[in-house]
Amino acid sequence: MANPIKVIISGPRGRMGKEAVKMVTSNDNFELVGVVDRINEGKKLYEVDVEFNQIDCTVYTDLKQCIEETKPDCLVELSVPQAAFEHIKTALAYKVRPVVGTTGLNKNELEELKIKADEARIGCIIAPNFAIGAVLMMKFSQMAAKYFQDVEIIEMHHNQKLDAPSGTAIKTAQMIENVRIPKKQGHPEEIEKLKGSRGADMSGMRIHSVRLPGLIAHQTVMLGGLGETLTIRHDSYNRASFMTGVKLSIETVMNLDYFVYGLENILD
Amino acid sequence: MANPIKVIISGPRGRMGKEAVKMVTSNDNFELVGVVDRINEGKKLYEVDVEFNQIDCTVYTDLKQCIEETKPDCLVELSVPQAAFEHIKTALAYKVRPVVGTTGLNKNELEELKIKADEARIGCIIAPNFAIGAVLMMKFSQMAAKYFQDVEIIEMHHNQKLDAPSGTAIKTAQMIENVRIPKKQGHPEEIEKLKGSRGADMSGMRIHSVRLPGLIAHQTVMLGGLGETLTIRHDSYNRASFMTGVKLSIETVMNLDYFVYGLENILD
Amino acid sequence: MANPIKVIISGPRGRMGKEAVKMVTSNDNFELVGVVDRINEGKKLYEVDVEFNQIDCTVYTDLKQCIEETKPDCLVELSVPQAAFEHIKTALAYKVRPVVGTTGLNKNELEELKIKADEARIGCIIAPNFAIGAVLMMKFSQMAAKYFQDVEIIEMHHNQKLDAPSGTAIKTAQMIENVRIPKKQGHPEEIEKLKGSRGADMSGMRIHSVRLPGLIAHQTVMLGGLGETLTIRHDSYNRASFMTGVKLSIETVMNLDYFVYGLENILD
Amino acid sequence: MANPIKVIISGPRGRMGKEAVKMVTSNDNFELVGVVDRINEGKKLYEVDVEFNQIDCTVYTDLKQCIEETKPDCLVELSVPQAAFEHIKTALAYKVRPVVGTTGLNKNELEELKIKADEARIGCIIAPNFAIGAVLMMKFSQMAAKYFQDVEIIEMHHNQKLDAPSGTAIKTAQMIENVRIPKKQGHPEEIEKLKGSRGADMSGMRIHSVRLPGLIAHQTVMLGGLGETLTIRHDSYNRASFMTGVKLSIETVMNLDYFVYGLENILD
Repeated sequence: MANPIKVIISGPRGRMGKEAVKMVTSNDNFELVGVVDRINEGKKLYEVDVEFNQIDCTVYTDLKQCIEETKPDCLVELSVPQAAFEHIKTALAYKVRPVVGTTGLNKNELEELKIKADEARIGCIIAPNFAIGAVLMMKFSQMAAKYFQDVEIIEMHHNQKLDAPSGTAIKTAQMIENVRIPKKQGHPEEIEKLKGSRGADMSGMRIHSVRLPGLIAHQTVMLGGLGETLTIRHDSYNRASFMTGVKLSIETVMNLDYFVYGLENILD
Repeated sequence: MANPIKVIISGPRGRMGKEAVKMVTSNDNFELVGVVDRINEGKKLYEVDVEFNQIDCTVYTDLKQCIEETKPDCLVELSVPQAAFEHIKTALAYKVRPVVGTTGLNKNELEELKIKADEARIGCIIAPNFAIGAVLMMKFSQMAAKYFQDVEIIEMHHNQKLDAPSGTAIKTAQMIENVRIPKKQGHPEEIEKLKGSRGADMSGMRIHSVRLPGLIAHQTVMLGGLGETLTIRHDSYNRASFMTGVKLSIETVMNLDYFVYGLENILD
Repeated sequence: MANPIKVIISGPRGRMGKEAVKMVTSNDNFELVGVVDRINEGKKLYEVDVEFNQIDCTVYTDLKQCIEETKPDCLVELSVPQAAFEHIKTALAYKVRPVVGTTGLNKNELEELKIKADEARIGCIIAPNFAIGAVLMMKFSQMAAKYFQDVEIIEMHHNQKLDAPSGTAIKTAQMIENVRIPKKQGHPEEIEKLKGSRGADMSGMRIHSVRLPGLIAHQTVMLGGLGETLTIRHDSYNRASFMTGVKLSIETVMNLDYFVYGLENILD
Repeated sequence: MANPIKVIISGPRGRMGKEAVKMVTSNDNFELVGVVDRINEGKKLYEVDVEFNQIDCTVYTDLKQCIEETKPDCLVELSVPQAAFEHIKTALAYKVRPVVGTTGLNKNELEELKIKADEARIGCIIAPNFAIGAVLMMKFSQMAAKYFQDVEIIEMHHNQKLDAPSGTAIKTAQMIENVRIPKKQGHPEEIEKLKGSRGADMSGMRIHSVRLPGLIAHQTVMLGGLGETLTIRHDSYNRASFMTGVKLSIETVMNLDYFVYGLENILD
């Protein structure tokens, strides 16, 4: 067996960060050699939070020092955008491959990082959504929309969600728009006896947002053709779902020599 | 085994009528002794339409004559409202029990028929919807809404349907309204980033209408509570679905001595 | 508004107990006047566990003393069977109405409690499953099976579940058996090209057990008739789902003067 | 607009054939210039069956004569295997592009046709399943199985189906087997309290076959990962569903200069 990939994690106390620490330390192909945080310089992880029970890994507040001492292969960056941008540049400078889950980096920042990674020929993966299931749902919906022009998206979330439709539903519709021949769906003389019943209109596609206590985060994309329907559904039950994507990204980034934005571009 | 129930069918050439002829003639508990139609006096059914292949049953244009000659137990009335009203009164006068699928009888007519049946103590069942599955879906949704105040209805039909929401969706919501404590669902400060995404509002409940080629007639009622959801779904694939209800109604009406409106009232 | 119902909870540190403490203290119709536990005599709940943050309620190790000092209306019993049996008898003796979620009471114990409650005309509710959604799913399936003889149960759980089918699936099938005319389902000459594909056979009904990582606890009951299917599905996402049933039971038990076993018997 | 593609159909009286005649004659991009049948030489389609109402197209019993007189671009072959093999060879010899739905051609015949088409550089598409939705369901399931090792297939059909599991379910599992790292699913010490409940085992995957009156032809593929599930479902309501694939194949074959087996290979 090959040597494990040496990983450092930035942002270990956040919700994603905690899951990432658990995932990396419980996977034989990975070795957690250090974490980077705003506070707790020099402490051990098990001293920081009871959840990090028995994880004997040192906290650094300075990324450079962490890299120089631990010689990592990969930086998993999950902190806030302000810190993340500098961290990624530092990592690239040290030829440490970044896997980034931080959202909120702006267009210019992303552009600069892409140039730096591509020129240095260092793999770098930035993904706003690490849930492989959600990304596959979007990708398959897009592929199917080439053959089925009629698409309805039904997203379902808990009733504490403030906005409708969900970001994932809008992103799905945008990805479909890129390949679908525009079409106003439904009967041409369709009548809404109750306003809103046909949902939101996006290039003729329809989006419906269901909100119920009990629900977590679910989305169904239905496509219809003559005598048949195709339905693609994703159910997300908890944050652990992101870790399948983080794991795949760490493994993939080690074999890349360029910049990738979006998990869909490393799934084939 | 008991003697079969002797049945006559009014409106045998309509879509429901044809299914009813098939159902009655293929069921050992029933015997089709005559049919009543506007035309084809004295012909045999097999002469009227190739679909009635081998069904050797006489067509009458006069209901009284049909009853006097065939001595039926039950009239299955599936013709137009104008004819149906007189037919039902005639049947009751002859102590023949009516099972009626004709829609469009007005309030006064229904009231008069109720009084006639109740006074004569003759069973009579009038049902605007004979699909047992659809009626149970509505009944169960109503029962569940006593415990789960949050309800979303998603009805799905082929894209040739003109109006949204469907009549069944509206009827379901009305039945729920009768038992549900009114509540505006969703987050109190909910924002529709795309108009219509949260569907139609009916007493705070939400109704969503999906339209796709390929679909037939489907409805899902979702109810949510703390940590759980309950979903009730009906799929109607073709008109044959009405026959389960017609069959049950014929069997039930023979043991009734009063008037019943709505299949839900003979399901327990 | 009426006075709140005064509640004591036995077994507050268990998983169900913690949820019950949260539910009772956050509901204006209820007042938590005491808790009963094996340990922590005289402590306040907030001293026992950080989760009980700010809940200023006294722990008693003796139920009698607790009742005499706090004068409760209702005992929510969620401890182990050995303790529960004595607790319920004590509560009944003091005319405190029990709501019991403890499973594992044997037939003799249940019989004795029924006699005691019925004779004293004190309401008492014992329910092995407080998830209203699950209980309604079973009840509706049973009701529908009177009209649809063909039933398939598909239960879906996480892949750490040891036994298949789930207890709920078996209980559902048993409830259906009580009303369904037995029937061997499927084509009479059906051939299983791969063994097990048609699932488990229970009086001719079929039960299928799906196991996947990610899933929590879900069950679908499908019933089929001519041209239509009716589907009833329950999704349980977490333990909070039991609290809707506990809440309803507390409210209901106050108006009962007899013994009830099973939540289905207080749902109408 | 380009000239319509000139099409001839072999096997116009079969179930697929009738749908194909309807589809081709109602599509402006296609022109039906002739049909080939075993009987009815020289008749017009409208004389052959009332369903071909007003379709003024000549029936040929000899394919060569049909091709020479009508100069078609494409042969849609839907007849029996014996006739089909010769028809396809003839078409290729005349540089008419075949789109073939006939199943039952053997391995040698397929090999010979591939060589002939590839050498002549004439497009030829042979597809055992023209339902695009079903083919996409299989393709997406295969793609997803690279990332989610745990797969359960639930196929649902009417209760007149003789064998379980369905051919499509087995084909889906085979396609997944080609990419999935084998794994015995479920808990390692899983116990079937009722035999068959965990379904059929295929390389550790599980297949469940549901049979109910009312159902038509449906399949769900569920894939599970940490905290999430991905579900891909196809519903086939009637034979018209095949026509979307026939239409796509006619359009695609005109731009091909080689042999293709399986609709999945022209979907991207």
